[in-house]
Amino acid sequence: MTYQELTEQIQKRKSFLCIGLDTDPCNIPPHLLAEDDPVYAFNKAIVEATHDLVIAYKPNLAFYESQGAKGWQSFEKTVRYIRSCDPSVLIIADAKRGDIGNTSRHYAKAFFETMDCDAVTVAPYMGEDSITPFLSYPGKWIIVLAVTSNKGANDFQFFADPADKRLFELVLERTKAWATKENLMFVAGATRPAMLADIRRIVPDHFLLVPGVGAQGGSLEEVVRYGMNAHCGLIINSSRGIIYASKGEDFALKAREAASQIQQEMARMLQNE
Amino acid sequence: MTYQELTEQIQKRKSFLCIGLDTDPCNIPPHLLAEDDPVYAFNKAIVEATHDLVIAYKPNLAFYESQGAKGWQSFEKTVRYIRSCDPSVLIIADAKRGDIGNTSRHYAKAFFETMDCDAVTVAPYMGEDSITPFLSYPGKWIIVLAVTSNKGANDFQFFADPADKRLFELVLERTKAWATKENLMFVAGATRPAMLADIRRIVPDHFLLVPGVGAQGGSLEEVVRYGMNAHCGLIINSSRGIIYASKGEDFALKAREAASQIQQEMARMLQNE
Repeated sequence: MTYQELTEQIQKRKSFLCIGLDTDPCNIPPHLLAEDDPVYAFNKAIVEATHDLVIAYKPNLAFYESQGAKGWQSFEKTVRYIRSCDPSVLIIADAKRGDIGNTSRHYAKAFFETMDCDAVTVAPYMGEDSITPFLSYPGKWIIVLAVTSNKGANDFQFFADPADKRLFELVLERTKAWATKENLMFVAGATRPAMLADIRRIVPDHFLLVPGVGAQGGSLEEVVRYGMNAHCGLIINSSRGIIYASKGEDFALKAREAASQIQQEMARMLQNE
Repeated sequence: MTYQELTEQIQKRKSFLCIGLDTDPCNIPPHLLAEDDPVYAFNKAIVEATHDLVIAYKPNLAFYESQGAKGWQSFEKTVRYIRSCDPSVLIIADAKRGDIGNTSRHYAKAFFETMDCDAVTVAPYMGEDSITPFLSYPGKWIIVLAVTSNKGANDFQFFADPADKRLFELVLERTKAWATKENLMFVAGATRPAMLADIRRIVPDHFLLVPGVGAQGGSLEEVVRYGMNAHCGLIINSSRGIIYASKGEDFALKAREAASQIQQEMARMLQNE
């Protein structure tokens, strides 16, 4: 999917919402546990009920890997289902990968060829050759960690040089030189909205994937104030607040209601811009 | 496995060699491709032929994930086979994971419960809560990236503050405060051996996992000169140089010969200390 196509989807759907599929077998409605693949059954129902309200889904690999190979099967089936249900939705593998070039090439193959995801999150610590192997797939995206939404972001991401440049700023500067706004986005946590202004000074045009709205405490309004650009430029993720809105048999309906509430706020915000 | 047990294995086996199972279906001997699971058949033969010469195996997750769920099955079977073949060998999942606390808990579950690996490599960018969930498993280890063996290590790992402290040094200082030498190791690339001396000033006692000897150009002798401590404190990885020593039907024998050559050098080095 190109930058232009993604921007058009945002305008068409009046939404820049991404639903995080952090599907934990311990948290899904009990009646699904009788299914052959409860995680897939859950994801399928969530996607079926919400896809017109979102521009992206973000399966979080940890939740699948904790079930071993069986979990990877649930992940594969989920990706295929999203693709068949709504081909215009972006599928983001939230995997935080990154390794030496020869190894990153295999991660790129995993998520872009074997799995047909549209985007993968990448950790920047290992530098250029850990990132560039993901860039050789036309229409695919990498999403590099800049400022994350967790408390631990304070430990290393704000480490600063004598000119007061912080690590996340160096990551933004260097990484944007290796790619373009057509294949590179950044993770920018919603829990530090004022930091979004600092990020926008370096990457005014790139898309930002913003986790941390909802369960982690980030505010949608603040994120839009500091992070939105003329093309929107935001993909805002919510996971637990939507997918676990109910643990009853009405979970998909309640997920739709929770997603719809956010989408309606987003529609207003897009109109006001 | 405890620090003491690992040290004893090094003395007993006269080796601190780790074989990296970077098993690429495109690189394994053609006669194995007729097998039901060629990657597993290859790994099994390599482990069978070499386990008395090593203290660890390090399956590199990217090579398994590039085959999707099927690859994760090969990974699961490989871990089980190593465990049954030689229970005293350390199994390192080279996965470079790391995410917010709630997600890292699921990665820890994946590698320490579902998979029964002994250690997992972790990327430090997201800080404390991305790392500590891996520490609640007695006898299990995390191996945090400090200085990696690739060219891209230059991009961010040596970024320095006004006191000339470099990012990898901050990673070492902070991370060692969250754990102990009984559950924490660091990745320290063999391609910058002099950097090992800087690392040893901060973590004199911790084990270092050293990739980059062999195909990537690092020298075993240099690594030992700068990195070895009184308990050895080194796990040196070689992947391609051993597992792809031959692409013929004699691949396991040739892998043993390549591993044996390194092990004999290591035995001399342990004796000289």
